Amino acid sequence: MMRAQSDVAPATWRRFLPSWLTAYRREQFFPDLMAGLVVTMMLIPQSMAYAIVAGLPPQYGMYASVLPLIAYALLGSSMTMAVGPVAVTSLLTASALAPLAAPGSGAYIAGAALLALLSGLVLFACGVLRLGFIAKLLSNPVVSGFTSGSSLLILIGQIEPLLGVPTASGSAIVTLISAFENVASLHAPTALVGCGTVALLLLLRLPKSSGLWLKLAPMVVLLATIVIASAGHLHQRFDIAVVGIFPGGLPALHPPAMEYGQIKALMLPACIIALVNFVSSISVAQTLAFKRKQKISADAELRALGAANVASAMSSGFPISGGFARSLVNFAAGAQTPLAGIISAVLMAMVVSSCAGLFRDLPVAVLAATIVVAVAPAIDIAALLRAWRYDRADALALAGTAAGVLVLGVEAGIGIGVALSLISLVWRSSQPHIAVLGRVPFSEHFRNVLRYKTETLPHVLVLRIDENLVFANAQSVDERIRDEVGQRPQVQHVLLVLSSVSQIDATALDMLLELNCDLNQQAIRLHLAEVKGPVLDRLARSTLSEQLSGSVYLSTHQAFQALAGGADDYSI
Amino acid sequence: MMRAQSDVAPATWRRFLPSWLTAYRREQFFPDLMAGLVVTMMLIPQSMAYAIVAGLPPQYGMYASVLPLIAYALLGSSMTMAVGPVAVTSLLTASALAPLAAPGSGAYIAGAALLALLSGLVLFACGVLRLGFIAKLLSNPVVSGFTSGSSLLILIGQIEPLLGVPTASGSAIVTLISAFENVASLHAPTALVGCGTVALLLLLRLPKSSGLWLKLAPMVVLLATIVIASAGHLHQRFDIAVVGIFPGGLPALHPPAMEYGQIKALMLPACIIALVNFVSSISVAQTLAFKRKQKISADAELRALGAANVASAMSSGFPISGGFARSLVNFAAGAQTPLAGIISAVLMAMVVSSCAGLFRDLPVAVLAATIVVAVAPAIDIAALLRAWRYDRADALALAGTAAGVLVLGVEAGIGIGVALSLISLVWRSSQPHIAVLGRVPFSEHFRNVLRYKTETLPHVLVLRIDENLVFANAQSVDERIRDEVGQRPQVQHVLLVLSSVSQIDATALDMLLELNCDLNQQAIRLHLAEVKGPVLDRLARSTLSEQLSGSVYLSTHQAFQALAGGADDYSI
Repeated sequence: MMRAQSDVAPATWRRFLPSWLTAYRREQFFPDLMAGLVVTMMLIPQSMAYAIVAGLPPQYGMYASVLPLIAYALLGSSMTMAVGPVAVTSLLTASALAPLAAPGSGAYIAGAALLALLSGLVLFACGVLRLGFIAKLLSNPVVSGFTSGSSLLILIGQIEPLLGVPTASGSAIVTLISAFENVASLHAPTALVGCGTVALLLLLRLPKSSGLWLKLAPMVVLLATIVIASAGHLHQRFDIAVVGIFPGGLPALHPPAMEYGQIKALMLPACIIALVNFVSSISVAQTLAFKRKQKISADAELRALGAANVASAMSSGFPISGGFARSLVNFAAGAQTPLAGIISAVLMAMVVSSCAGLFRDLPVAVLAATIVVAVAPAIDIAALLRAWRYDRADALALAGTAAGVLVLGVEAGIGIGVALSLISLVWRSSQPHIAVLGRVPFSEHFRNVLRYKTETLPHVLVLRIDENLVFANAQSVDERIRDEVGQRPQVQHVLLVLSSVSQIDATALDMLLELNCDLNQQAIRLHLAEVKGPVLDRLARSTLSEQLSGSVYLSTHQAFQALAGGADDYSI
Repeated sequence: MMRAQSDVAPATWRRFLPSWLTAYRREQFFPDLMAGLVVTMMLIPQSMAYAIVAGLPPQYGMYASVLPLIAYALLGSSMTMAVGPVAVTSLLTASALAPLAAPGSGAYIAGAALLALLSGLVLFACGVLRLGFIAKLLSNPVVSGFTSGSSLLILIGQIEPLLGVPTASGSAIVTLISAFENVASLHAPTALVGCGTVALLLLLRLPKSSGLWLKLAPMVVLLATIVIASAGHLHQRFDIAVVGIFPGGLPALHPPAMEYGQIKALMLPACIIALVNFVSSISVAQTLAFKRKQKISADAELRALGAANVASAMSSGFPISGGFARSLVNFAAGAQTPLAGIISAVLMAMVVSSCAGLFRDLPVAVLAATIVVAVAPAIDIAALLRAWRYDRADALALAGTAAGVLVLGVEAGIGIGVALSLISLVWRSSQPHIAVLGRVPFSEHFRNVLRYKTETLPHVLVLRIDENLVFANAQSVDERIRDEVGQRPQVQHVLLVLSSVSQIDATALDMLLELNCDLNQQAIRLHLAEVKGPVLDRLARSTLSEQLSGSVYLSTHQAFQALAGGADDYSI
């Protein structure tokens, strides 16, 4: 396991502490402190910006960046993942709540917390039930298509705060069209601040060598614009929208208001958020863990992300997730243990409770600019081209998911993606590889007759099945075997070599039973060879073991010799 | 191909005729005529009974048993399948229309025809797009659970007509509870006729040797009860519900009324009916075809079933499908070509247009008894026990689907079934088999080190991946490889033997790219061996071919020799 083991037997109460904490070493503290500090500097602007994406007042992003970080630190298996508000789950939150309440209203805020609670409980339950494999429902092209599509959707959503162009809400296309129609009512001062900030942030990225500390640029820009906006009275003079005054202090802890109708309406979105959350977080956690030869437990991650979302719900927050960019920064800044996350949480709590007034004059357009610069790189056109060159089916899944997100919305998009992934899996599984085998002369080896010079017997058909036998391919295997038999009128024995088969599901078993029976009616016997131990154990519990017209042989060679009988008429 | 080829070049117009017709031989006619007659005798009571299951007046079952049979005969690839109203699609029809109109009303009848049209168009489109593989979305246990669940649902639905106990509509449980509550209001004469007919039909099944002609028992019982009911004036005297007078003659051909709202509401049910229809029909067609060494084309079947359903819609019918029992009887009666189906259609048309008055005094309870006896054997408890013994996951899929049908309804049940099938496929695919290989001493053969005495090199890790690399298992494969590397600090080369891999999808490619990169950072090189031709062609189009830190070898032996270098320190 990846966590250091302490040499002394832990006292009872210590068992409930994470092992990284009980084994904490003094020299880990300074790197953790620095990483916690750097991540907080990144988290302040991003948490406010993603709260806006979620349709919430900016301070709710900071509320969601305290307790969840602590919950994750105590339960997670990753040493370096940084959790908090992220772009895609914020977009999903906005999409789920849009039909239920007006953005920013009390009902909306309560709904966001309920959504965090529900998706947290779903994640936690999946962790307890060890359903970590569910992350595999999404293929990379689908995740890529989803990320690109939702990033574009987020960008389109920033047109209004960034440029001051009023836009209609609805699908991406509706918003875009309304933006074009209303382009004349662009609010020049807002657009100037917005575009200026985008340009500044991009300029600050240019020097390549500068590395980690440049990640602080958004925070520096944020502070600079606060100073400029405040000194220049931009809000009063040019009517530029600002964050405004929000109550200082941390929100009181309380569970979100729950009502049956609300829960029913939010359950499906909560499951979708949980899925997207887990899929994206686990890949970040695994990438980072391998670099330090640490290990991730998918089920522990599910529980930790679940608890973090429940914690977000308790502190009036909204769904949060593992962030890719912030985790990379945390890792690069030298974070040793999840203490870095706890330090971020403490710093964040201090900012919320004592510096709330600081953000009064922050132009909303600056936050929009932060979002644009953070999210734009996630639109990955190259991935589509790469997939198109490599695998058309995958490219279609990518494009279909992205188009679904843009045209039908994020939730329908992810649904289309899952469906496309699964259909491609069924389609791939339904094309099994089967080889007709012959014996390599003067040997005990059997090879594909199409690729090697081999000897075969006219009355024995030897087929090697190169795939697990499951419902998706049972029918194709069946058809192929009957085909091969049909082409050889002399065949009296069919020998299936199952060396590559480690599973035979109930559908495939039915297929074998029926095949055995039908072949038997044509006086053809069915034999098996090289059946793996666990497969054989299972078959022994089925009726196939009694009904099989032929025998089960240990090796193909043994079977071939037995079935050859006295015949010497090998056809080479 | 399975159809006989005529020796003369066909005239242009003959190309549009099915090949069985242009090559028809005189000696095929008598068996076709007899089979057509026997099937018609079975079809008359069943078509009326299944119309009742679908919530329609009985004559609509007969309307749906004329044109669809002709359409299927002209387009289908099966020589012996008998199509017409069947139990499960009728139940699905009732379930789809229940929220939209009152059973038997004009709107309901129009809705049923629209449902047939839509599901027919869906089937036809799938056939044109060659989507035959979609049938593989359902595993046998799911089909079995669905069939058992819907059969039980149909039985529960017959409580009212069979016993005259008024029941509430709704889920199976609601109906059952209301039946228990209302058991006191049982209508004794109806129950007597109903149970008497069930007993009679079961008695007539007892003699085992009597064979095919006993399939006519329902028709004989039907005629007998008509005579008794008519002579005894059962309807007038005992208030027993009878079929009553319906207009003689065939319905006028016209497309069903179409309205956007209706189409939208029925589209999903139509797709579900199409799926269930195709899955059950194709398995019947294949079973029968193999017995006579004929062949079925899944895409032709889709088109033929689609056309048959459109034909049903044009003649005021409802969704129809390939029937299991009737097809078996058709086959056993000696049907040689689809002409048997055309003969059935003609006979049915004659019955509808000239003998409509005959069914006036037929008690509805007799039709309910026909349904009970036909449907009860489809409740297959043994399948559950068999699946439970053989494979727990499959048993759960079966039970979950059946429970879904009974508790949530047929449509939700099939949805649960598809989801369970796919999740089990992902789960099975996510557990790939990987073997660490060593060299069999003094040979060029490589085998699993756990099963054979082999030699290995401490700095070379040879892994054989026994599964296609797809998104569902990419992560597990990745974890396993990193695990094996982690356990061997001396490893400098990882050799992946891809002899069993015939697909690497984009997700798995990403995994390999990242693995290659991460291993390279630890000064470990990644090599491939025995890559299949098509896989290699594809990899050449990806960036892996440039980025791979190691080499691609033709054989494992070649790779092993190259990587061994001068070292002779094999550890055995």
